[in-house]
Amino acid sequence: MQTQHTAFPCDMLVAAGILVTQDDDRRILSDAALVVTDGRIAAIGPADALAKAYAPRETLDLSGCLVLPGLVNTHGHAAMTLFRGLCDDAPLSVWLSEHIWPAEARLDAAAVSLGTRLACAEMLATGTTCFCDAYLYVDAIADAVEEAGMRAVISQGVFEIENAGFKTVDAALNAAGALTDRLAGHDRLRPAIFPHAVYTCSAKTLTRCADFARSQNVLLSTHAAETARENEDCLQANGARVIPYLNELGLLGQNTLLAHGVALDAADIGILAATGTSVAHCPKSNMKLGSGIAPVAALREAGVTVALGTDGAASNNTLNLISEMQTAALLQKVAACDPTLLAAEAALDMATRDGAAAIGWPELGRLTVGGPADLCALDMSRPQLTPAFDPVSDAVYAANGGEVACTMVAGKVLYRNGAFPGFDYPALVAAFKETAARLTRPGA
Amino acid sequence: MQTQHTAFPCDMLVAAGILVTQDDDRRILSDAALVVTDGRIAAIGPADALAKAYAPRETLDLSGCLVLPGLVNTHGHAAMTLFRGLCDDAPLSVWLSEHIWPAEARLDAAAVSLGTRLACAEMLATGTTCFCDAYLYVDAIADAVEEAGMRAVISQGVFEIENAGFKTVDAALNAAGALTDRLAGHDRLRPAIFPHAVYTCSAKTLTRCADFARSQNVLLSTHAAETARENEDCLQANGARVIPYLNELGLLGQNTLLAHGVALDAADIGILAATGTSVAHCPKSNMKLGSGIAPVAALREAGVTVALGTDGAASNNTLNLISEMQTAALLQKVAACDPTLLAAEAALDMATRDGAAAIGWPELGRLTVGGPADLCALDMSRPQLTPAFDPVSDAVYAANGGEVACTMVAGKVLYRNGAFPGFDYPALVAAFKETAARLTRPGA
Ligand SMILES: [Zn+2]
Ligand SMILES: [Zn+2]
Repeated sequence: MQTQHTAFPCDMLVAAGILVTQDDDRRILSDAALVVTDGRIAAIGPADALAKAYAPRETLDLSGCLVLPGLVNTHGHAAMTLFRGLCDDAPLSVWLSEHIWPAEARLDAAAVSLGTRLACAEMLATGTTCFCDAYLYVDAIADAVEEAGMRAVISQGVFEIENAGFKTVDAALNAAGALTDRLAGHDRLRPAIFPHAVYTCSAKTLTRCADFARSQNVLLSTHAAETARENEDCLQANGARVIPYLNELGLLGQNTLLAHGVALDAADIGILAATGTSVAHCPKSNMKLGSGIAPVAALREAGVTVALGTDGAASNNTLNLISEMQTAALLQKVAACDPTLLAAEAALDMATRDGAAAIGWPELGRLTVGGPADLCALDMSRPQLTPAFDPVSDAVYAANGGEVACTMVAGKVLYRNGAFPGFDYPALVAAFKETAARLTRPGA
Repeated sequence: MQTQHTAFPCDMLVAAGILVTQDDDRRILSDAALVVTDGRIAAIGPADALAKAYAPRETLDLSGCLVLPGLVNTHGHAAMTLFRGLCDDAPLSVWLSEHIWPAEARLDAAAVSLGTRLACAEMLATGTTCFCDAYLYVDAIADAVEEAGMRAVISQGVFEIENAGFKTVDAALNAAGALTDRLAGHDRLRPAIFPHAVYTCSAKTLTRCADFARSQNVLLSTHAAETARENEDCLQANGARVIPYLNELGLLGQNTLLAHGVALDAADIGILAATGTSVAHCPKSNMKLGSGIAPVAALREAGVTVALGTDGAASNNTLNLISEMQTAALLQKVAACDPTLLAAEAALDMATRDGAAAIGWPELGRLTVGGPADLCALDMSRPQLTPAFDPVSDAVYAANGGEVACTMVAGKVLYRNGAFPGFDYPALVAAFKETAARLTRPGA
């Protein structure tokens, strides 16, 4: 008589055709499965064995898919989806002062909520499960991301230029404090502080933000060295380039993530490496705005953690991290005329593990037992993923984001074959379009 | 009593939410319709009016879509889909001599047929309706494209390096002649000649190809000035840079399309403009191989027709012209740190009208009455195409290719919502994968 083994109960058994774990050994498994319980991964192994060992409440068949950890978008302004395509191909000053700032001045919490929710939809549909957002109306953003089911680091914006949604630095720091209290112990949402840039914040304000980040133990991110001009202006105004100036003020360190980092010289890179500061590389935004090419290969060589960001949809115009990985890899190669720079695995690391490290949430960006069940799945039946010689190459160089068939956050399927099971997408789009029109064409 | 008008019969009435005609006035129509008869456009106008005036045998509802002319991919080697992801991030010499050439030497007509058919599937799924192909086994290619239903300019490759599929220049020119005879009067397929490059063809062979193109009145295309190194080598070997050398040999002119055109100086650009020679810009291939950045803005400024190409899937690794448009626009901006360069409309022109002009097929790449019914449709319900302020901006900067919902060639729907009504896609993929494995892992 054979012994009867009892199968373990679990929430979900996920079959994965190819599983790119991005664990410390960069294991890639074929015909694998993931066991999910309470939003976390309880087991990873051969599909056959796990199917026998577990009694799942639900199954998810991704056996035709290339499964990756959920992607981590480390820099953006989600609500700017409201301004996508509003004004392209214009000089930066015209774009900002004649189009973006006037439209932003008309924002309110309701509009930011809609813009953020549409951004969540776009990110989920292209494999992103966690993003680092920097904007105003953080309570509305937190509500929106909460509803959408994603993970996010929500950063209160701080600056000293006129804006309807922003009163004083004190008020912003108070709002950041309130957000920090609200999100204490939250599983999916974390607070952060975002002084906008050295050219929109005084030294005093930058220092106050750094003090806040340190005292509250939250991430500080800021736009830094986006253009050569920014360094020239900073040198003129403050007697130092952007990176040494930020360092002097105490803003750099392991809890700091600098967006862009385009105009960096060897000394700047040395400071970033020495302080453990991370960089959120935003290649498509840098290209579209004509900012320049960040020295990503040199930064990585120096030991700086470089992550990826999309920036806002007004300067990209997408929130598609798969396309961002590809662009990052291609851009480094052409910048140095060296096809060996920033290989596929490095680009995938930037969008996963390194992104997670950069925002101080290192259990993300990898699929490991005990870790969060955050993943995305690419439909390998699409022509661009055929013949499938190398899953990492395919994810970086062949995928476009449109082949994402499933995105899961904390064990919940939030995107599946074009649909968003977690929310009423058509209703969202209708409300979003009405608001976008009102913000940009106030007389219409 | 009301007069009864008889509705005109037609093959198909296509409703288009937004119709970007790319006609000479660049008209963009909302709530429009196209009437299709015998593979051509019989009328374009308001959806309501055309619905009353015509009695179609079939209707196609693209009322939720952004409809563009079918895209024209002017440079590639379709069958190289067999080698996608075979070897990335390697120095050019290793990539070519250790991976691509050995695999290419094992090709045969059956393999080229499968590779070409998978390429057709990928191009159709991302909105391309016509492509200019350059490879060997042109009869197999013609059969494959015939079956797939696409349009193509099929170019017989000519070179003087060892390859199993290539015997002598005489044999190649004979094959080109036979192809020209075979395709005479064909509606969708046209013949062409493709001397590979100045470094793989002797002066005599280049001249013979030019003579062939002139006498047969077919397109001549060749790889030219892909890298700075190519100019240095040509100067050493032939006493001139690539462009003056080709000009001297009589290869330039209105029937000539040069692929890449990366390493061009002002004199080179002047020669291209003076001779009416076109350029097929392949930004993603140039980036991935570290070749350099083509001076597209300067070429266009000088009056040179610049089209877009994907190149082969071994160096891109996709055949997605939507992504190529976006990359072209972004790359010009960052190269000169000028966000106003290569605006969205210019990038769309390159992928449509200018591509058609470059391959000598000017009725393509635009939607006009009397012209071919070749179009693609982007699903505007996707988040990345919301709020839809500017359809041209959205097509270039926001689309990724994955939102293509329908592609039509000569009035036939060849791609619709993920499926290929014209052929058995799953059977193709199975045969393709078996062949790709055999070619690349002969011992396996
Ligand atoms: Zn930003
Ligand atoms: Zn080529």
